[in-house]
Amino acid sequence: MARKMKAAIFVEPNRIVLDEKPMPDVGPLDALIRITTTTICGTDVHILKGEYPVARGLTIGHEPVGVIEKLGSAVEGYQEGQRVIAGAITPSGHSAACLCGCHSQDGAGTRHGFKPMGGWRFGNTIDGAQAEYLLVPDAMTNLAPIPDALSDEQVLMCPDIMSTGFSGAERGRVKIGDTVAVFAQGPIGLCATAGARLMGATRIIAVDAVPARMEIARRMGADHVVDFSKADPVDEIMRITDGRGVDVAIEALGRQETFEAALRVLRPGGTLSSLGVYSGDLTIPLGPFHAGLGDHTIVTTLCPGGKERMRRLMEVIASSRLDTRPLVTHRFPLDRIEEAYDLFANQRDGVLKVAIAP
Amino acid sequence: MARKMKAAIFVEPNRIVLDEKPMPDVGPLDALIRITTTTICGTDVHILKGEYPVARGLTIGHEPVGVIEKLGSAVEGYQEGQRVIAGAITPSGHSAACLCGCHSQDGAGTRHGFKPMGGWRFGNTIDGAQAEYLLVPDAMTNLAPIPDALSDEQVLMCPDIMSTGFSGAERGRVKIGDTVAVFAQGPIGLCATAGARLMGATRIIAVDAVPARMEIARRMGADHVVDFSKADPVDEIMRITDGRGVDVAIEALGRQETFEAALRVLRPGGTLSSLGVYSGDLTIPLGPFHAGLGDHTIVTTLCPGGKERMRRLMEVIASSRLDTRPLVTHRFPLDRIEEAYDLFANQRDGVLKVAIAP
Amino acid sequence: MARKMKAAIFVEPNRIVLDEKPMPDVGPLDALIRITTTTICGTDVHILKGEYPVARGLTIGHEPVGVIEKLGSAVEGYQEGQRVIAGAITPSGHSAACLCGCHSQDGAGTRHGFKPMGGWRFGNTIDGAQAEYLLVPDAMTNLAPIPDALSDEQVLMCPDIMSTGFSGAERGRVKIGDTVAVFAQGPIGLCATAGARLMGATRIIAVDAVPARMEIARRMGADHVVDFSKADPVDEIMRITDGRGVDVAIEALGRQETFEAALRVLRPGGTLSSLGVYSGDLTIPLGPFHAGLGDHTIVTTLCPGGKERMRRLMEVIASSRLDTRPLVTHRFPLDRIEEAYDLFANQRDGVLKVAIAP
Amino acid sequence: MARKMKAAIFVEPNRIVLDEKPMPDVGPLDALIRITTTTICGTDVHILKGEYPVARGLTIGHEPVGVIEKLGSAVEGYQEGQRVIAGAITPSGHSAACLCGCHSQDGAGTRHGFKPMGGWRFGNTIDGAQAEYLLVPDAMTNLAPIPDALSDEQVLMCPDIMSTGFSGAERGRVKIGDTVAVFAQGPIGLCATAGARLMGATRIIAVDAVPARMEIARRMGADHVVDFSKADPVDEIMRITDGRGVDVAIEALGRQETFEAALRVLRPGGTLSSLGVYSGDLTIPLGPFHAGLGDHTIVTTLCPGGKERMRRLMEVIASSRLDTRPLVTHRFPLDRIEEAYDLFANQRDGVLKVAIAP
Repeated sequence: MARKMKAAIFVEPNRIVLDEKPMPDVGPLDALIRITTTTICGTDVHILKGEYPVARGLTIGHEPVGVIEKLGSAVEGYQEGQRVIAGAITPSGHSAACLCGCHSQDGAGTRHGFKPMGGWRFGNTIDGAQAEYLLVPDAMTNLAPIPDALSDEQVLMCPDIMSTGFSGAERGRVKIGDTVAVFAQGPIGLCATAGARLMGATRIIAVDAVPARMEIARRMGADHVVDFSKADPVDEIMRITDGRGVDVAIEALGRQETFEAALRVLRPGGTLSSLGVYSGDLTIPLGPFHAGLGDHTIVTTLCPGGKERMRRLMEVIASSRLDTRPLVTHRFPLDRIEEAYDLFANQRDGVLKVAIAP
Repeated sequence: MARKMKAAIFVEPNRIVLDEKPMPDVGPLDALIRITTTTICGTDVHILKGEYPVARGLTIGHEPVGVIEKLGSAVEGYQEGQRVIAGAITPSGHSAACLCGCHSQDGAGTRHGFKPMGGWRFGNTIDGAQAEYLLVPDAMTNLAPIPDALSDEQVLMCPDIMSTGFSGAERGRVKIGDTVAVFAQGPIGLCATAGARLMGATRIIAVDAVPARMEIARRMGADHVVDFSKADPVDEIMRITDGRGVDVAIEALGRQETFEAALRVLRPGGTLSSLGVYSGDLTIPLGPFHAGLGDHTIVTTLCPGGKERMRRLMEVIASSRLDTRPLVTHRFPLDRIEEAYDLFANQRDGVLKVAIAP
Repeated sequence: MARKMKAAIFVEPNRIVLDEKPMPDVGPLDALIRITTTTICGTDVHILKGEYPVARGLTIGHEPVGVIEKLGSAVEGYQEGQRVIAGAITPSGHSAACLCGCHSQDGAGTRHGFKPMGGWRFGNTIDGAQAEYLLVPDAMTNLAPIPDALSDEQVLMCPDIMSTGFSGAERGRVKIGDTVAVFAQGPIGLCATAGARLMGATRIIAVDAVPARMEIARRMGADHVVDFSKADPVDEIMRITDGRGVDVAIEALGRQETFEAALRVLRPGGTLSSLGVYSGDLTIPLGPFHAGLGDHTIVTTLCPGGKERMRRLMEVIASSRLDTRPLVTHRFPLDRIEEAYDLFANQRDGVLKVAIAP
Repeated sequence: MARKMKAAIFVEPNRIVLDEKPMPDVGPLDALIRITTTTICGTDVHILKGEYPVARGLTIGHEPVGVIEKLGSAVEGYQEGQRVIAGAITPSGHSAACLCGCHSQDGAGTRHGFKPMGGWRFGNTIDGAQAEYLLVPDAMTNLAPIPDALSDEQVLMCPDIMSTGFSGAERGRVKIGDTVAVFAQGPIGLCATAGARLMGATRIIAVDAVPARMEIARRMGADHVVDFSKADPVDEIMRITDGRGVDVAIEALGRQETFEAALRVLRPGGTLSSLGVYSGDLTIPLGPFHAGLGDHTIVTTLCPGGKERMRRLMEVIASSRLDTRPLVTHRFPLDRIEEAYDLFANQRDGVLKVAIAP
């Protein structure tokens, strides 16, 4: 095995570079994956810009598709050479948080077993997926074999984008016959739209202003697409719903204005399901909050992980319920990942997601 | 039957006076109740001060205990002379909101069947309970017979205080073994404490600074009582929980500082159950909100109503699971209700709740 | 208004005849509907055969589509001439059962407010829909306006077939990525298949032996169709699922063999959602029940009713998520309803559902 | 360390003997526990009698209290010498079943990750706790430190009895104000009674015929105790509830007659929560099942395990919400375990549970 590998490393704010790193050692519960395809996430751009702090020298990326290169001594149930994915979130399976079903807040090794965002390790607290090789911790909890019929690009959205987007609909408890609004149609918002459709919503209103995204929103299941650059989305949604508002409002951007709009279109007793990563305090306006008397539910979700989640998402793809390939708009070899960051961070050329292949 | 009755009427901000009013007509679905005991709520004080707008001339009050005087022509299943209560919230039972289980947001008569706080009618949109007689709409949905063994004062907290307080624990989905914090130990907070206890929380931390309330909090089931005038309650709760935080945090005051403290002590994946009536926009601080990635749930609740809710709450009293009589600290005849308002609005003499008997 | 109307009346076992009846009186909470389309249900055939007892002289039928002819004096929010449907189940909205969300077991007028199947009144305890006119009780809880764009036949399955079938998936809590088996593809089973698809199941296995039904099952969303006349369905489902079994098994026939097969294919921790109407005691076999240690859930459901349910189901049709018109295979005028019963009861000519138009 | 240890070994039907066995090897994820207290379960008696098959030579017992003797090389977060318990069910944490929250049906190592009762390993598929030492698999998922203030006997019911009994109430979703019947007041039924009380049931009806158990039932929270030897328990419960029936019926014996009685007293829409281990097919009688139209829910549960469950149960003890010591009626040293089996299997001398101390 090669002693060195290439990896996209966070050097300092505004500098992620492709460099060489030693191959990781494989502990008893780990698996070493040879990455065959990965991608860049909006969160990685936050890291690039220094808005989300990670250790210097860390390999970035949390969306791995690959092949098992080597299994830890205590790992059973897999074989080397198997094609696998792992979720962006890699819970241990054994912390108090995991045992409560709250895997993303995994606090394995902490005093009480809960740690905010503790399940997010790749490219955050341990080396990530934008590299030739990736060490997957707690492999038996996290490695999900890829069905033979599916290509790398077909499953590339499963580790984060689909899991997060779908969770917007799931945590919102979308029911048959619901009216749902989804604010922002970036990759995650598009998957939230698809998730609402999959769960039985009968009127789905997607909000964005980028024509290509608006077009894909319809393919993902939106019944109405509101262009917020042309009309106030709150007014439009209230018009479309004849003044009723929506049962579930999904926020998929992470800004005060979309959070607030989501609340303003929510019917009494409805659920605001928030997926966005915010960068400042949020304000809940008194009026649409009905002074705290509206029987509202506000939920936030960090991308569900674990192999069973991955298996289910791949089933969605395999059963032709959803095709996420339209989200992959550009492709780069790992060697050109810096170029890919430049394109993606600046949202040029209509980019939605890039596929990176070592 | 007398043609006139006495009622506590909102005249203008800072003036609620006892005056005469005509007896109401009884429609086919209504019931006329002769009030035997009622009380004053913090919300009534907001109305008194002009902070919550109601029509001038409205009778105030939403916590009725009484006797059926007359039944509407279409009302079946009750008899005149029966002792009954009705909830502060009197849903129709037939709106879309009610059929979704969201009775408090009842929009009977509206286009879509949802109306913010629409279930709250007494002393808000129709004449209320601080009077000799009260007209109860949708009587078959709302009248709950009082078990013979229970006195008026034993059930006086059911229509609002117990129902609201308990809902803090219920909507927070308190489970056996949970740690729960309850911010503020006014009558509703005290019942939230009792509700958390009833649902199996094993560590209940109540926060207040009034010695008498702190004392009753223990009787209601608190394991720890934190005096916020002596120490920062967030620090204290984190100390008591050894840094873990709480599974459910109940806000029972309606202020930014308690809402925020509730979030700060909440473990990842926990639920903030808000009961307070806020008077301004709320801020969600970025840090304890984990930028939207903490798998948090925030729920608000308007006092559940309807006769089945009332029946269950009276069962709690009848089964000796809880005695709310310690909450009734003062008693007044209806003729002296203005005096009662003065005492209660100014929170004098250690008042928690007053019983008003016409 | 005519003083007499035509109605399909249960005379005695094996005799349902079309005869004249007086027009009903309209009470304050009622609405009189002029039926424009209705249908015959399998339950009606049980009544015909004397297997389910109803009073002699009762008008049969519980699936009404019509026009409001006259509103009771206390009914608000509708107008005469409006096109409406009502559910097969017509809850009062105000009983304890309704206030608990258990509308189908409505016990309005009973001591405790619960009555087994109490919500089912049409063609069971009061006159039903196979007539020129139908009296709808508790009209404000039950009348759902039909969107203009939808024809009678488009909504004809909503009152019972869709509501029941969908509830099989809903009560089974079908989730994205679930594998679901549906035993029997009669009209209700077909809608259970459609419901599972709408809720995000990714592998749906439908079981039947009638080629036409098997064909429609695919159109309704089945991924696999098992012909139980050619292979043991338990074996086939275990083969299709590679030995895993299903997450949710829906029973839509009402026989021991399908109930048992549903249990046999259920994975540990799975849910058996039973829709069938059984005619004898059921046996739970020890082995597949894992002696009571399999963390199984078995749920039964009586067709959810009420106007909000009907509104949501019509939204499913209006949004083109599902077209139930293929289920209507035959059409008869009311005058020939006896002929329709003969065809339907004997399941001749590939009949699925008949549309009856007065 | 000693090379041999004493263990209660299943030799053949009707023979469990105390004998010597080699000390187990400690794998990387295991922990070796020195047992300080354990007990005998009804299931062990089934094993003794040959009614439940296990391998000859297996050490019996699944209720361990002890001290960590040695930790596997990959186990972190514990230290040798720590007092701990582990649940009767020891899930891996990483199977598909575990990741779905269905830990007791853990299928670690199986093709699909689900295995009926797969989480039950101690004294079933691996050596159990009636020995001087016990090897705990997946130690990080299963070892729960005992608070210093609690004695061995105080926590002895946590691994199985409390966890199972409480789950009867939890899976039954007992709510504030519920009426609950618990059939049979053996150790598990008594804990089901206590669990219903902890969750807010206001009328709890316990059924048994042994005076000592009936007496303890009251201490555990029963409001009524029905002696089935003196009156038909169905009749009695319907009388006590004035004909209403119960919201939740808990079966804690595992016999047709109690299962059936539980169904007969259940109100429409209620939940039958079954804890019993059945030894033959069960019959669901058509009438009380309302032919499948009663909106019933029937749930079965296998004792929830895992360290977080254990932590919560010990919190119940530590917070004085419940004292299970009255369930321990007899004490034996491990050397006399055969005598303990004889007493317990024959239910002599009013035995409820025996404490066994090596």
